[in-house]
Amino acid sequence: MTMTLPQMRDATPEEMWAANRRNEWNRPTSGTCHGYVQANLAILPAADALDFFRFCQRNPKPCPILEVTDVGDPEPKLIAPGADLRTDLPRYRVYRDGRLDDERTDIVDLWRDEFVAFLMGCSFSFEHLLLDAGLPVRNVDQEINGPVYVSNVDCTPAGRFHGKLVVSMRPMPPSLVPAAATITEAHPEVHGGPVHVGSPDLLGISDLEQPDWGDVVQMQPGDVPMFWACGVTPQQAAMEAGIDLMISHATGHMFVTRLRV
Amino acid sequence: MTMTLPQMRDATPEEMWAANRRNEWNRPTSGTCHGYVQANLAILPAADALDFFRFCQRNPKPCPILEVTDVGDPEPKLIAPGADLRTDLPRYRVYRDGRLDDERTDIVDLWRDEFVAFLMGCSFSFEHLLLDAGLPVRNVDQEINGPVYVSNVDCTPAGRFHGKLVVSMRPMPPSLVPAAATITEAHPEVHGGPVHVGSPDLLGISDLEQPDWGDVVQMQPGDVPMFWACGVTPQQAAMEAGIDLMISHATGHMFVTRLRV
Repeated sequence: MTMTLPQMRDATPEEMWAANRRNEWNRPTSGTCHGYVQANLAILPAADALDFFRFCQRNPKPCPILEVTDVGDPEPKLIAPGADLRTDLPRYRVYRDGRLDDERTDIVDLWRDEFVAFLMGCSFSFEHLLLDAGLPVRNVDQEINGPVYVSNVDCTPAGRFHGKLVVSMRPMPPSLVPAAATITEAHPEVHGGPVHVGSPDLLGISDLEQPDWGDVVQMQPGDVPMFWACGVTPQQAAMEAGIDLMISHATGHMFVTRLRV
Repeated sequence: MTMTLPQMRDATPEEMWAANRRNEWNRPTSGTCHGYVQANLAILPAADALDFFRFCQRNPKPCPILEVTDVGDPEPKLIAPGADLRTDLPRYRVYRDGRLDDERTDIVDLWRDEFVAFLMGCSFSFEHLLLDAGLPVRNVDQEINGPVYVSNVDCTPAGRFHGKLVVSMRPMPPSLVPAAATITEAHPEVHGGPVHVGSPDLLGISDLEQPDWGDVVQMQPGDVPMFWACGVTPQQAAMEAGIDLMISHATGHMFVTRLRV
């Protein structure tokens, strides 16, 4: 049985975990489990975890840590008790030596006792807040994945981890820019306020119609581009570090936590 | 030459570091370097650092991380560039196997390439904010170290680190309790808002006149006791874990950072 988006819109996190465990949901999690914080996942061997933890702590806007699991434990006991990170996401990516090697729906056979999982807030969660406040979220209206760009801003490095800040972009009518900034600023756990408003050039983005990930979003006349730090940033840093093994969620296929927005 | 408190009140962090390096200041840092964030220090071997980092992340009120240094590097490059954590605090404590073993004014000969230093915000910083807003801080008025108690609240454990929440207490006139809460709530980097207001019993504190550290503070008629999470918490957790070696600041002898409150 395959679940539908209307069925999952108001699903509980437990229902989403179970649906993924039975392979009944194989799609992005945007628009599901209304009101719950969704998370980026990065799983690394313990030997790399201290540096990666430090990278996240030094770059809190792209890497807002929600939980770091105990070594070898696939259950995020604090923000998702009862969940199993090996099965309860819709889709995973496996990176080896800094390159995408595999995409799969569970990672049971890859799990190791030395693994540490990092869960970081995702901006899907604040899109709900913007919509609930009556602000437009163009990528939701247009039913596309919002565009994501590599900026020219350097993250603060830590050990072997370094790289550019990756940003998501949402167009906003000028009169609503302050409200969008204020609403998101109050939620540092899902990237907080915008890192830039107005000039893609100043972030080194020459063409908004060529995102590095996601789809081109249609701007309405007068719309101002607003940029937020994006959870792809730490994955990119791990790729650039060329670490032996990292497992993440597949783009848009997030882990749903028990935390409320 | 020994510096005096009036000389150090408006000193820069660099002046404080230099005074400590020359052993010209050997006293608590309360009331010095007005406007700069002061920090708790905990230095541990890298082998214990991942668990300790996780303990801090899971208990952000007592352990608000300001910086975690690179392995083996005694310079907090981000919040205090140019400082040397081996010499630039007025006084250190050395714990071995979970017991206080030594107190000294520098740790140059103890430093190891495997050390990681954790710097965590200290509530001295928010006392400035309360005073600047016209609120009374009784321990400052009475020129004593504020009282600190072990509560009955369990911290969230992480690996070998576990223990009770340690709290500082400041008496406040009832009409000023909301302002004191609001002002400190806005500064999570120095412990944030109070963890409890009103009933010491509910925190397992039977006698306010028997603090575990610090001095007894005289309450004024009508004063309500307000409790904040305290940076002694992670030190206690490290002691209870009985870790081989930890070096911290001596009580009240904090590290002054370049961060502004």
